[in-house]
Amino acid sequence: MKVIIVGATGAVGKTAVVALSGRHEIIRVGRTSGDVQMDIEDIDSIRAMYQQVGNVDAVVSAVGHVHFGAVHEMTSEQFMTGIYGKALPQVNLVLEGFDYVNDGGSFTVTSGVLNRDPIRGSSCAAAANGALDGFVRAAAVDMPRRIRINAVSPEVLEVCREKYDGFFPGHVHVSSEAVGLAFSKAVEGCLSGQIITVE
Amino acid sequence: MKVIIVGATGAVGKTAVVALSGRHEIIRVGRTSGDVQMDIEDIDSIRAMYQQVGNVDAVVSAVGHVHFGAVHEMTSEQFMTGIYGKALPQVNLVLEGFDYVNDGGSFTVTSGVLNRDPIRGSSCAAAANGALDGFVRAAAVDMPRRIRINAVSPEVLEVCREKYDGFFPGHVHVSSEAVGLAFSKAVEGCLSGQIITVE
Repeated sequence: MKVIIVGATGAVGKTAVVALSGRHEIIRVGRTSGDVQMDIEDIDSIRAMYQQVGNVDAVVSAVGHVHFGAVHEMTSEQFMTGIYGKALPQVNLVLEGFDYVNDGGSFTVTSGVLNRDPIRGSSCAAAANGALDGFVRAAAVDMPRRIRINAVSPEVLEVCREKYDGFFPGHVHVSSEAVGLAFSKAVEGCLSGQIITVE
Repeated sequence: MKVIIVGATGAVGKTAVVALSGRHEIIRVGRTSGDVQMDIEDIDSIRAMYQQVGNVDAVVSAVGHVHFGAVHEMTSEQFMTGIYGKALPQVNLVLEGFDYVNDGGSFTVTSGVLNRDPIRGSSCAAAANGALDGFVRAAAVDMPRRIRINAVSPEVLEVCREKYDGFFPGHVHVSSEAVGLAFSKAVEGCLSGQIITVE
């Protein structure tokens, strides 16, 4: 398979690269690194990436930034950073990808744990995750040409333990291998419309 | 209690009015009808509504419009109508309401069934519902002054059976009384951070 991985250098995206490399041709897409450069928050940049790469069997994205802060101190603009920074970019990657994903191919987006197991200050992140999970569940029933779509929704990665120290009290930390298996299931498996949790 | 109900004339909002009237002082808010007029898609209009009504014990909203259409025929702009038309307005009603909701009061938003049980063409609606459900779950842990927040997520209402005929094959139809009970639980009960499903 020819597989686009957007956010290939991030902690989550790397797990997909490791899990899928060897068996497949991987196109690493990043803002400033990788095989192809793309700004996923710019729909024209998404279109240019697809035109450059051409037809593929799978599109994986593991990107997104959100606002963290208590809900009663959050502005409407801060709330929307999760939509504009995490949900909409990954949705746009799907909406713009239909002309480039082969019959029976797949889309895989990345949401996360915070809409099912929130931490303090995570309402923006949880809304973005919830939007992605909802989109995936419903988009699956519309998909043309046997194309599948799933979300990988991981707990905090072990490799991010120090970075997030103190922010996720009591949350388990999952291995990069476990997250990679979720991407393998999404890309190489048969499921569609699933939120593949890793916890 | 003094209770604001936004969207009081809609099929869902009416159930909240019926369930809570008699025991409480209800302020009906609508775009063109009700006791107070407000455009929930205009944050200045939300602020003016709160300034006019003053302090309350509960804020209920049952509003929103979304785009219906197959995902592979949907534009990015059409996807965002669900965010701008259903998710963000209800989130803004919360974000702007903290100065007006009394200690121990509550917010109740309305999501819906489509992110857990999608129909054809519902990916925009499902994303909006998912954003609201995620927001509610996470916002609950931040709430100051014992304020609670919940979402009511109803199946298709019996009173909408003809309006939606053919679009929700096999979905159950729920009574207005059952939906009203969910609003009663959200406003008069003790739960927070819950997606109160009616199905």
